[in-house]
Amino acid sequence: MCRTYRESLSQVELYSGYINKLIDELAALPGIGNKSAQRLAFYIIGMSQARVKHLADTIVNAKEHVTYCKVCQNLTDEEVCPICGNPRRDHKTIMVVENSRDLAAYEKTGKYKGVYHVLHGAISPMLGIGPGDIKLKELIARLSKEEVSEVIIATNSSLEGETTAMYISKLIKPAGIKVTRIASGVPVGGDLEYIDEVTLLRALEGRTEL
Amino acid sequence: MCRTYRESLSQVELYSGYINKLIDELAALPGIGNKSAQRLAFYIIGMSQARVKHLADTIVNAKEHVTYCKVCQNLTDEEVCPICGNPRRDHKTIMVVENSRDLAAYEKTGKYKGVYHVLHGAISPMLGIGPGDIKLKELIARLSKEEVSEVIIATNSSLEGETTAMYISKLIKPAGIKVTRIASGVPVGGDLEYIDEVTLLRALEGRTEL
Repeated sequence: MCRTYRESLSQVELYSGYINKLIDELAALPGIGNKSAQRLAFYIIGMSQARVKHLADTIVNAKEHVTYCKVCQNLTDEEVCPICGNPRRDHKTIMVVENSRDLAAYEKTGKYKGVYHVLHGAISPMLGIGPGDIKLKELIARLSKEEVSEVIIATNSSLEGETTAMYISKLIKPAGIKVTRIASGVPVGGDLEYIDEVTLLRALEGRTEL
Repeated sequence: MCRTYRESLSQVELYSGYINKLIDELAALPGIGNKSAQRLAFYIIGMSQARVKHLADTIVNAKEHVTYCKVCQNLTDEEVCPICGNPRRDHKTIMVVENSRDLAAYEKTGKYKGVYHVLHGAISPMLGIGPGDIKLKELIARLSKEEVSEVIIATNSSLEGETTAMYISKLIKPAGIKVTRIASGVPVGGDLEYIDEVTLLRALEGRTEL
């Protein structure tokens, strides 16, 4: 992205200072390249003054009011998020996820009735992210206070996700808590032919009796 | 986009009011779907307070300070844009483009030395956009004041672009001004096999002697 930006610098110099600043700000957001940033900038400039003000206020408000749920660390604008505050959920089962989007993905299934713990990251020695950089001590503190029957580790099936899963498992298993890991395997509807070997081997290892 | 958004409404309801509002605002921008909006919203919430404030200010500032160049109607934060204000450009040749991005595309070639006129749209009877809805009267006013030797119409090669080109041509040719249209044809590096029939016929019609 950085290179694309530099390559088209001569193009960007065409625009005036304020447009350039806006393009730069937008291009710094994830998933927005220089072309999209330009398109968005021109769109924003073309919006009504009121809509632009509203967009800017919404951004500032979200940042100001949204904090971490004091129980599960999910993003919320209340002290305790709607899931943790719901008495009909099973508070003895905690699913550990890497971020709020993963939580949303499981919530969308509508079948999981337990609660969550959001780590906001995964352990990555490569990127210098250690156990202290994710919301892990909050999980430990929670386990020591609450009565928990099972911790389901639903971190991603990536190197970082697996490392984090192993680390958490080793940390909390000695305390006598049941720790499980979501299954790795062939995705539903997936064609074996196109699935990588590691996944195929995982699916074989994790086979269940019919 | 609308349907995708509605489909995942249950997912969005997970988040708190401020996050939802931010996701909605972002998803309303062009080229940003609900998934990207979620990702951006979480990213923005994770940015520092200062950076969020800066992003919001940049958006408001761009809208407040950017106006149309009083000569060519390009977006600028000065009264006259850098291109119109450059005495080394050929002010007798005006290239008419649909928007600022098209201007930027030609500017990037580095070969065009004339000036521009930005219409900010194209005539589209389908969308109810008539000649009065684009910056056409500004072009006419300009042609009556300035000494112009050629008007190059570089609107898109779409139905709207062609309609606009024809309209402008009929409007200004009687005044004795030379009006040209950029060539339609096979793109450089394009493989004939994959090019649509209309383009192939255009390329044939527009053939030049070697």
